[in-house]
Amino acid sequence: MEKITKDERLDYISGTDLKIIQSPSVFSFSIDAILLGKFVRVPIQKGAILDLCTGNGVIALLLTTRTKATIVGVELQERLIDYALRNRQLNEREEQVQFVQADLNHLPASIQKKKYDVVTCNPPYFEAGQALEKNLNEHHALARHEIACTLDDVIRVCSEQVKYKGKVAIVHRPERLADILEKMRAYRLEPKRMQLIYPKEGKPANMVLIEAIKEGQPGLETLYPLTILNQSGEYSDAFKEVYIEQ
Amino acid sequence: MEKITKDERLDYISGTDLKIIQSPSVFSFSIDAILLGKFVRVPIQKGAILDLCTGNGVIALLLTTRTKATIVGVELQERLIDYALRNRQLNEREEQVQFVQADLNHLPASIQKKKYDVVTCNPPYFEAGQALEKNLNEHHALARHEIACTLDDVIRVCSEQVKYKGKVAIVHRPERLADILEKMRAYRLEPKRMQLIYPKEGKPANMVLIEAIKEGQPGLETLYPLTILNQSGEYSDAFKEVYIEQ
Repeated sequence: MEKITKDERLDYISGTDLKIIQSPSVFSFSIDAILLGKFVRVPIQKGAILDLCTGNGVIALLLTTRTKATIVGVELQERLIDYALRNRQLNEREEQVQFVQADLNHLPASIQKKKYDVVTCNPPYFEAGQALEKNLNEHHALARHEIACTLDDVIRVCSEQVKYKGKVAIVHRPERLADILEKMRAYRLEPKRMQLIYPKEGKPANMVLIEAIKEGQPGLETLYPLTILNQSGEYSDAFKEVYIEQ
Repeated sequence: MEKITKDERLDYISGTDLKIIQSPSVFSFSIDAILLGKFVRVPIQKGAILDLCTGNGVIALLLTTRTKATIVGVELQERLIDYALRNRQLNEREEQVQFVQADLNHLPASIQKKKYDVVTCNPPYFEAGQALEKNLNEHHALARHEIACTLDDVIRVCSEQVKYKGKVAIVHRPERLADILEKMRAYRLEPKRMQLIYPKEGKPANMVLIEAIKEGQPGLETLYPLTILNQSGEYSDAFKEVYIEQ
């Protein structure tokens, strides 16, 4: 059993046999990563997937439960790559998953020259110009704000790395929806599937999942949304089905 | 009481005292028009509103129940303007509402030179290049397909006619969402509020309501969606509240 320190905890990804070590003081995965990992359509038997801003590797590892494709996770922060590597070992996914410490704006040649069937990304959500949240340490700041990479960088690199007719899927804040759709089209990624996530019945959405196809035909399917809490403040049945029971 | 012919019927707009004469062989308003008329934010006490593609006038007339602003409805088709004028008379809205027969690409100078607080539009949904639906008569074809005006025309004219910081609200098909948001921004309309309408629990959306502000700041609020039928195929409580009981 992997040793975990006082600062760390071990989380289980429901519906799978995956365990994730993470440290709240560095970065913890949250619902958005899991939802993206379950939303994106992946080839089942073979192929290659790139997960940008992989953090502690949760999306890359979750995808191993859905596909036999090889998966490369890229993360800028050394401390997070360390978690990703420990999580890979803990879950015995060394053969299927590779983690690379790199800046997505300066990907190593081995990744740059390859084209992927699917590229996923759970990028920083907040613009660098926005006031940083209080007491945010460097690890959280890089993960949550567009300091090392902007939305434009993320979508440009997704488009560069995906195959012709391959899929790019990202999770983001719905406030940025017009930016996301506009930039996807600017980089020849046609938005094809979208799902909004609502924190509670009656409240505005707080997450959006979008899948685009490189050089795809126009026409967006807007999937039935997921509402996390019902009006009594309990997990909705639909959310339990995707997030807890699956 | 207004005479109605064999080809016509009299519909009531629920939650109001409005009655609408319409002819299924020419064009009938549907849920989308009513939802747009209830969705858009309007000044209550004064102002000027322009409703493009007004059809038989249902949105213009519905707005009289929400605002004291003067309202101008513009419609290309003579037969529909005739219905709009009869509906205005039937509901005694001659003082507040004006109907003008015009092509939105060639608006009369009296409208062109004015700027409106709010511009609404329930435009044709389908591209002219798409196969026309079977047995569509000329009136339905013009109302449903982008024959006389394209989405680009609609959004350009909305932008030209609205005041600085005024609101533009349209209803459309969610398949076109990327086009709509992209074109709004191209014409300096910033998308600010969006609501998706789902025909039934679990099914993809089939309508989207979007409100933009001329020269507004970026940031889209994604309102909690409206689902028309619940899983048993009955009207949902939320839909009844907006559409039937209000």
